[in-house]
Amino acid sequence: MSVAGYEALVEVQLRPGVADPQGATIEHALGALGFNGVSKVRAGKAFRLQVDAPDASAARRLVEEICARLLANPVIEVSAVSLEPLGEVA
Amino acid sequence: MSVAGYEALVEVQLRPGVADPQGATIEHALGALGFNGVSKVRAGKAFRLQVDAPDASAARRLVEEICARLLANPVIEVSAVSLEPLGEVA
Repeated sequence: MSVAGYEALVEVQLRPGVADPQGATIEHALGALGFNGVSKVRAGKAFRLQVDAPDASAARRLVEEICARLLANPVIEVSAVSLEPLGEVA
Repeated sequence: MSVAGYEALVEVQLRPGVADPQGATIEHALGALGFNGVSKVRAGKAFRLQVDAPDASAARRLVEEICARLLANPVIEVSAVSLEPLGEVA
């Protein structure tokens, strides 16, 4: 039994302390719409990609390198990677 | 022991079948950068918010209503909510 590949979810958010005007606008709009008890809204990006890799740690290394090279700006953003194996091949 | 609130992660992606030019551009750029074995790149949004709610099911209902009203366009987008309890208050 070998795994064909992995589906990765990459969440990219602005670093804490970096101003997030889109999040602030959403938080304000929620109050105006009558949603109470909502705070600390942050707006970021979610990427999904499928990668071929022999195992989960190789897949994670590949996706983290992709984050650093293309998906996130490490000066102002942080990224988090989660992985799920795709369907297994007999 | 009661829970002060929940942190929600809302992932919003274009529905399958809806063209995703940003995802296609990223996939093409990854190939040009020498990353092989990457496919099905989709680019979406990730929102984080903290909600006050008495329990997890109330928190989920609130966040799903927020998705439907403000964060996602249900005609072309799907959203997924995941919740984590915030620090507990004695």
